[in-house]
Order: sequence, then C-alpha cells, then structure tokens
Amino acid sequence: MKQLDKGIHAVANIQSQALHAGFKSDAAHNDLALIYFPTGATVSGVFTQNLVKAWPVIHGQASLKHHSNFKAILINSGNANACNGPDGEKTMHQTIQELADLCAIKPSEILMSSTGVIGAPLDFFPFKKALPTLVNSLQSESSQAVSESIMTTDTVAKETAYSLEIDGQTIHIGAMAKGSGMIHPNLGTMLAYIVTDIACDQVTLNQLLKNAVDVSFNSMTVDGDTSTNDTVLLCATGENSIDLTDHNLATIQSLITKVSQDLAQMIARDGEGASKFITITVGGAQSTEDAKAVAKSLATSNLLKAALFGQDPNWGRALSAIGNSGVETLDPWLIDIIFKSDIGSIQPCRNGAYHPFDPQFAQKILTATDIEMIVELNQGTSQSTVWTCDLTHDYIEINADYHT
Amino acid sequence: MKQLDKGIHAVANIQSQALHAGFKSDAAHNDLALIYFPTGATVSGVFTQNLVKAWPVIHGQASLKHHSNFKAILINSGNANACNGPDGEKTMHQTIQELADLCAIKPSEILMSSTGVIGAPLDFFPFKKALPTLVNSLQSESSQAVSESIMTTDTVAKETAYSLEIDGQTIHIGAMAKGSGMIHPNLGTMLAYIVTDIACDQVTLNQLLKNAVDVSFNSMTVDGDTSTNDTVLLCATGENSIDLTDHNLATIQSLITKVSQDLAQMIARDGEGASKFITITVGGAQSTEDAKAVAKSLATSNLLKAALFGQDPNWGRALSAIGNSGVETLDPWLIDIIFKSDIGSIQPCRNGAYHPFDPQFAQKILTATDIEMIVELNQGTSQSTVWTCDLTHDYIEINADYHT
Repeated sequence: MKQLDKGIHAVANIQSQALHAGFKSDAAHNDLALIYFPTGATVSGVFTQNLVKAWPVIHGQASLKHHSNFKAILINSGNANACNGPDGEKTMHQTIQELADLCAIKPSEILMSSTGVIGAPLDFFPFKKALPTLVNSLQSESSQAVSESIMTTDTVAKETAYSLEIDGQTIHIGAMAKGSGMIHPNLGTMLAYIVTDIACDQVTLNQLLKNAVDVSFNSMTVDGDTSTNDTVLLCATGENSIDLTDHNLATIQSLITKVSQDLAQMIARDGEGASKFITITVGGAQSTEDAKAVAKSLATSNLLKAALFGQDPNWGRALSAIGNSGVETLDPWLIDIIFKSDIGSIQPCRNGAYHPFDPQFAQKILTATDIEMIVELNQGTSQSTVWTCDLTHDYIEINADYHT
Repeated sequence: MKQLDKGIHAVANIQSQALHAGFKSDAAHNDLALIYFPTGATVSGVFTQNLVKAWPVIHGQASLKHHSNFKAILINSGNANACNGPDGEKTMHQTIQELADLCAIKPSEILMSSTGVIGAPLDFFPFKKALPTLVNSLQSESSQAVSESIMTTDTVAKETAYSLEIDGQTIHIGAMAKGSGMIHPNLGTMLAYIVTDIACDQVTLNQLLKNAVDVSFNSMTVDGDTSTNDTVLLCATGENSIDLTDHNLATIQSLITKVSQDLAQMIARDGEGASKFITITVGGAQSTEDAKAVAKSLATSNLLKAALFGQDPNWGRALSAIGNSGVETLDPWLIDIIFKSDIGSIQPCRNGAYHPFDPQFAQKILTATDIEMIVELNQGTSQSTVWTCDLTHDYIEINADYHT
C-alpha cells in the first residue's frame, strides 16, 4: 500500500472546485464545493441516525434508494439546511435543478451535503449566482480548495489517499472529511467523501462502506452527539477493471477501512478544544458488541475525559464508566486497566482494584498528546477500539461563546 | 404541609453525631457520622445500578433483602470503600462489629455508607479509635454536624423537613443528602437519608421510596455518571400510629416525593461548577417513558449545557438532542421549544423550525440563575421533568485538577 498526497484527486477522472458563495460571512473562506464525476460513479451512503435530519440527508437517503449512479456532489458550508421548514427543501431542489441544467445532467444524478448553522433560512440566490463560475472552473489538480471549503470549526483540513497493486493492476482511493464535534454557533457535522476507481455495484459498495464505518466513524466520538447532517459517501468511478473476487474484495475492504479510520482519527484529533488524542482499546470481551459498549462508555465519560486533560490516570472513573456501560455480564473483579504513551506505561488497576504505580511517572506519561488506554476485561476474546479526545476548557469556550 | 428546619431531627427519637476520624486530611472537616434509632426503624433502600459497587452498597443490598429493622446508619466520607479488594470488605465488617458491640445491638441492625476516593485502602484503625466518642456523644438537637460531615465537593449542606396533619395526627419527615456530580479526586456519590415517624412495613416503604425516587433522584443529572456508591435510604421509626389507609398513603407518598425532589433539586443546583439550575419539562409525549427519555437526552447534552452556560438559547442543539433520544416515534415537525426565567420567556422553535425571537431579550432571560426549558412534543398527553445544571469552566477545573 502506497500513501498518496492528492486526496480525492489520487483517483483519476474526478473534477472539483470550491469558491465563496456567501454562506460564511468571511469572504476569505470558501463555502461552496463541487465534486464532479464526468463519466459517473456508483455511490453508497450512510447518514445520521438522528431523527431530526437536514434536508440534504432526507434527499440523499431517498436518492440512494432509487439510484446508484451519480455525477455530482454539491457541498455548502455555513448553513446546515436543517430545521428551517419547507423553504429549505425548496431551495435544495432549486439548487439541484440549476446545477443539473448547467452541467446538462439529470437532477437525480446530484447529491447534496450541507453543514453549518441550523434553523437558518437558506436562500437560492447565492447558489444561483455562484454555480456557473463553480462549474466552469472545475479542475483535477488539487483537492485543497474543496477540503478546506467544507471546514467549519475544524482547525485542519482532513485528507488521505493510497494506491495498491492487486493482480498487477493499481487501484486508487482518496478521501476527505470534516468534523470537530458539534460546531459553533449551532450544530456541526461529520461529512466524509471517499472515492475509488474500482468498478463495483451499489449493493457491494453498501457492504464495503458499512463494514468500514462500523470500525471507523462509528468508533469515534468527540462529545457523544450525533448531528442532523452526518453523511459518509463512497463513490466508485469504475475506471479500473479489477476483478472483484472474494480475495480482492477483502483487500479492497481493508483499504476502504484504512482510509475511513484515517479520517475518523483525524476528526477525533481535531475534536473541539482537544489537547489530547485518546485511543481506547477494550479486549477480553465476550463479544465485539460488549467490547464496543465498554469502549464507548469510556469515550463518552466527561469525568474521565476531564481527568485525562488534567493528566490524571483516573482508573476509578474508568472503572465506574465501565460499570455504567450496560454490559450486564461484566465481572468487575477481573478488569485490568493500563495507560500508555510514547513515554511509557502504567497499570493502576488489576483485578478491579488498585495496583501500585508511581503517580509522578503516571503524570509524565499523560503529558503526551497521544494517549492509549488499554482495558482488559479478561472474560472473552473479542475486542474493540474507539478514538476520542479530552474534555478541556476550550470545549466549553467554543460551545458557550455564541455571542462573542 | 409545614416546612421545618431541623433536617432529620424534625422526627422524634432519632439521635445523631459526627466527628473527624481521619479519612479527610483536613481535621476541620468531620468525616464520620452516625444516625441512631434507639427503638429501631423499618428501612427501605435503593442503590446504584452501576455494576461496579462499593462494599457498603453490596452489604446494604444484601442486608435489606434479609432484614427490615435497623438501629444504626454509619457514614464515612473521604474514602468510598470501593475497588480496594477484599481488605475493604474486611474493614467494613470489623467496623460494623465494633459499632454493634459499643451500642449493644446486632451487626445485622447496622447499615453503612461511604463516599470519597475510590480504590484507596480503608483502615479499621480510625473507625476503632473514633467510634466510642461518636457513640457517647449522640444527640437529638441538631442535624448540622451530620449533614456537613457527609459533604465532599458539595458547596452547601442539603437538608429539608416538613410536618403534615393527617386524621388529626401530625406526621414528620426529615431528610438530608450529599452529591455534586462525581467528586474530586476520584469518584463521588449521591447519598440521601429520609426519616419519618410513620409505622410502615418494609414492602410498603419500598413502594413509597421507588415511586419517589423515579420522579426525584432518577430525574436529576449533573454529568450523566452513576457512581459506585449511590444510596437512598427511607427509614420509618413508627412513633406515629397513623392508619395507613389508601388515602393516607397517597398523602404520605406526596410528602416523601416532595422531600426527595427538594434534595434532588439541591444536588442539581450544587452540581460541580454549576452556574445555572435548569429545569427541563417535556410535555405532549406518547408515554411518560418517552417524555423522560427526551428530557434526559437534553439534560445530558454537553453541547446544550455549554450553550446555556453561554446564555445562548440554542434550540438547534436542543432539537438535535431530542432527535438523539432514542424515541423512534417522534415527529420532529411538531416540536415547540420555550426558554423561560423570571425575566420572561421566548419560543425560538415552533413546529420543529426557527420561530422569530429577539436574541437580545433571549440572552437577558438566560442571565438568570434558574432557567426553565419547556419542550412540547405535541404528540400525546404524558410529561416528565428533569433537573440539571450547566456545563462550565469550573466543571473542567474541578475534574481535571487532581494534582493541585
């Protein structure tokens, strides 16, 4: 596997562009992006499970049920097009029609994503004004404009790409994402776009995406909230004619899982106000579901995440969060807990009770930016890994200071 | 109903005392308390549902299964007697035996509670040394020493008491609690003790307590964590001979519910780092369970709680939290949201979408310490109320700064 640096443009025959249409107040920040597949792509999608859904999510779910081939993904930031009544739906349809006309494609070949303020009216006018320029300036050289334009409270753009030889052919995969917890001033969103040049039917793509999402985007939490707009799309252009044997599919699955995990880790690392990136691995569980439930209970504990911000190896809070995981068959008296970083590791808890450790060395270990927490349940052979960040003053600052 | 000011000593024939035994480092803070019923009391209890349980919780649950009449409740603060291995259990039993000998009662007539650091060894010696003085100085005048001694990160002692005339007789109820979220430096706890002079069998007491806890302690959250030590005890001394007719029981139920709600509200108000007390009422639900699920999803949303700290009527985050409540039958397009305080009220959301309001006035409303959030689902007739507090810089400070 070879790492590439062109994001979605690691894959051939994809065009993109971004510009400032006016949804963000600062004209220096682009807020409208287009990803274009001149010869089409088979697309699979997973969307937020929040019952409150933005218009583009409602639209995308319906579109992907009835269609498998798409030519354009239009993404605006600065306005989530959520909770704004029937006018938001109307603007979305007008925009899709306008783009279809400009590109001479069908409206049903277009998917849309939005991220930003929820509940705010979304006008068609800025789209109408910006779309001709956007379409006319499509290019295939750089993904930077697009990956930056979708940022909201993100502090860094998030891209990854690889190529891999299979059966003497080279397949390519490129991806980008945005997300940083829920976003100032209202709601934020996790958006991710993965493109590859394999030729693949939608049913198979759905399975590849679902498997990847389970161990990546669904194994990552910043603040436990699911937004109204979360969307992950996997697009296969079919440039490559590699045979999808079971063996090749397994290889492709690991590649798609790898880019998904790359992006999920970038999002957790860029969590709102985060000072630490925390990898929680729970092993020795009776099932993967149990392991994941325990890992998620740890990853969403404010108490534990505030402790790690304070460089405190607070195994007591960890044990309590494990006890609150809802896994009824756990035996607390078998649990071991280890904290680890580049600096070293300590085991403050063995068999569910205090295990002697050097508090000074523990604090030193936790000064690192990347922390690993290893929980061994000693009750089975299943495991799960979840990524999160610490809970800091800056999280409060970002999420409280609406008026400043 | 008449409000009284003597806490548990509003009820006759109860003795109490507290002193410093050495579990807290500061000798100015008492850390060992005894509540004594010279002629016994019928006791009912509810305990943490955390799978990881402190020794006194494991002991209390077993005791209340086999016994209904108790004479003493011993409470230490500064050490939770949790996750410290078999030695913690041994110390507990030694302590209970020592207290039984000193009082000439049976060990099975004693319940114990602990709150404070978890995972720390707990020695018998400080108990042995302090218990004779504690027993010899029991008094019935003031509950202050006891209600203060059980505090950990609490900033105020929490007591309430009432009397009520029923059928020409006066019944009394007094109560105290501690709790302020999870507590520095490790785990904290919610402890509550309610005493009354009615004569009542344990089965009836269990029902009265369960009903009260459902709409009080189980309707309150500071940070979504359940500790290893949470305990609520309801003790009936039987001094009063009032007939427990259905009608009288209903009256007594409302009294027990009232003191439970008083204490739950005091705990939410004293939440770690809290600057605001927030009452969330969800109405128009298809069932009480649905209403409570929605209210709890709101009350545990970091995003919403950080917004309220920032005086931001962030109905978008509220709507998203409602969508994440797990109530699958919700129609988001029917939901109304109102924010209210002494200063006035605004309705920023109607039918699941933005509803015009004055942002300046909204911010002014949210400068109040007591905030009400009213969510009308418009899909049924059931409702539920939950109390919580905002998420502030001080919460991070309290829970991160272990080493200072």
